[in-house]
Amino acid sequence: MSNQDDTAKPGQWGPPYLLYLGNAPDDLAIKTARGLAYWRPHWCIGQHRRTGCKPTLGLREMGMAEAKAEGANTMVIGTANAGGVMGPEIVADIITALDAGLHVVAGLHQKLRENPDIVAAAQRNGRMLFDARDPAPGIPVGSGRPRDGHRLLTVGTDCSVGKMYTTLAIERALRRRNVKANFRATGQTGIFIAGSGVPIDAVVADFISGGIEWISPARFDGGWDLIEGQGSLFHPSYAGVSLGLLHGAQPDALVLCHEPTRPHMRGLPGYPLPDLQRCLAANLVAARLTNPAVKAIGVALNTSGIPAEQAEALCAQTSRLLGLPCQDPVTMGVESIVDNLLACFVN
Amino acid sequence: MSNQDDTAKPGQWGPPYLLYLGNAPDDLAIKTARGLAYWRPHWCIGQHRRTGCKPTLGLREMGMAEAKAEGANTMVIGTANAGGVMGPEIVADIITALDAGLHVVAGLHQKLRENPDIVAAAQRNGRMLFDARDPAPGIPVGSGRPRDGHRLLTVGTDCSVGKMYTTLAIERALRRRNVKANFRATGQTGIFIAGSGVPIDAVVADFISGGIEWISPARFDGGWDLIEGQGSLFHPSYAGVSLGLLHGAQPDALVLCHEPTRPHMRGLPGYPLPDLQRCLAANLVAARLTNPAVKAIGVALNTSGIPAEQAEALCAQTSRLLGLPCQDPVTMGVESIVDNLLACFVN
Repeated sequence: MSNQDDTAKPGQWGPPYLLYLGNAPDDLAIKTARGLAYWRPHWCIGQHRRTGCKPTLGLREMGMAEAKAEGANTMVIGTANAGGVMGPEIVADIITALDAGLHVVAGLHQKLRENPDIVAAAQRNGRMLFDARDPAPGIPVGSGRPRDGHRLLTVGTDCSVGKMYTTLAIERALRRRNVKANFRATGQTGIFIAGSGVPIDAVVADFISGGIEWISPARFDGGWDLIEGQGSLFHPSYAGVSLGLLHGAQPDALVLCHEPTRPHMRGLPGYPLPDLQRCLAANLVAARLTNPAVKAIGVALNTSGIPAEQAEALCAQTSRLLGLPCQDPVTMGVESIVDNLLACFVN
Repeated sequence: MSNQDDTAKPGQWGPPYLLYLGNAPDDLAIKTARGLAYWRPHWCIGQHRRTGCKPTLGLREMGMAEAKAEGANTMVIGTANAGGVMGPEIVADIITALDAGLHVVAGLHQKLRENPDIVAAAQRNGRMLFDARDPAPGIPVGSGRPRDGHRLLTVGTDCSVGKMYTTLAIERALRRRNVKANFRATGQTGIFIAGSGVPIDAVVADFISGGIEWISPARFDGGWDLIEGQGSLFHPSYAGVSLGLLHGAQPDALVLCHEPTRPHMRGLPGYPLPDLQRCLAANLVAARLTNPAVKAIGVALNTSGIPAEQAEALCAQTSRLLGLPCQDPVTMGVESIVDNLLACFVN
């Protein structure tokens, strides 16, 4: 489906959504559903929780048939068990949703299409299954060919430091200023929010940069493609993904994202976070391979772990250090970053 | 199977090999078979060509049944059609080989296991099929944890500049000096030569560095793992693979490989090759993330495109420029590179 249609095509998955929380044990387990409810609240008509599920999105509680009657088109599995595995309860609920006439989409490691009972239920009801971790077929190898259009990429000191939120905040701010802008998703939550994208960590290694070229083709309308970054050039497990993403994006503009209380690289005690200046410089050097004119235009800090006054001071200090506007997109917005973006790239 | 056993385990694929050239149109199409015949001549008892096949390895011509009678264990599909697709003639020949009692291995994009007639022939004969582009299941995410043992990695200015040949030449030179050394394969030809490995460009993007950690685990015998590099940090299509490989390898020693007549990055007119100093520096900087003690120990030039006298002069000049021994592994050997390796890493 196309990027950010507010209504799905007939017979296809898309909003309105019922968000399935199942028996998620904590807030971390409903990260995907929360992202969707935060960025696309008008698409989310309800939530479904099993008895004992503690976290909530504050949406109306609904059964599957009720959600369908209220206009829901698709149930989103917005929770993950340990290991991304579907337990028998989730499978039963998915079948109930399909029997109620909903499409079902998920971003689990274990695929919907690999469960024969789920596949049978989808077939007998003529409903779609969509696994957000399944890359679309036919992704090409990256060509490196310069292409038209403006592209911004969020890069990070680490995984999970706010790259998706920052990218979406910039999309919203640009649209409010009547600048054409499209979020280009590279992770499962982003794919549900955008309605399309490429799960870049799940493509075959040779196709990383090609996958990004594919989701952000040349554009000629003066608008911006805002590409969701992943990982970090300094993460020993995933840096290859980040570098291929950077090369495929051919970004004109980079925004550096950081979480200042992170004690070490995610999942890797013993690996400290890179210095912000060093991290930004490394991204700029690497990005110049496919776009020699790339510029850093801002820094986004996720300050959820520190008091508000300290957050303001830290942003001011970071801004002076790097010579770039610095904000927390969630608590402060991204207006100064967008000001700088538009000032740097006057059409 | 274990690395470089000279005999296969009973019932498993492995040498002795019959090399299948089919109706390969030119020398480039038999690259895999040529690498195998060059590096493991004692494993290759014959070649099989269809009428009209021009290129040859100079091995004895054999039918499949004859090869089996002469002791062959496995037929290696050492040729590729355009697009890596198997035509009906190749399929028929593979079935003949299986019916003759040979295992069959291939490194094509199109998989042996995806052809039902080939699968049926393997099953009725109790023979193995092995697709070298299929990563083994269960490859973990890279941990970045420092591990024991010495590792050398070949890195390059571009794809196809001689990284596999250089790595194998260093293995041979070290073994001649009674230093324990094992080639660790990351591409299809290397996997047939080693008898194991990981097709690193075919793993899912999140597992690039993990795949390399997996093929070169900690070792405690004072020996060297010699890891076959892929691609280049400066190739816009594949740099992500090269970076993940570099991080997963945790190399102690790097050898830079280069082909001095290459007009542009492979397949990408408009992308010049990087300067050797810049390329080596970028690899060292990136490698320090997982092994701060990494050292460059030599340069390998593929001088097949220039006259011999010029080749000697170019190696001398490159050696002065980078302050490292520089040789063409095929025409000059790698003794000075290995001298420097052993001098830098006295046990």
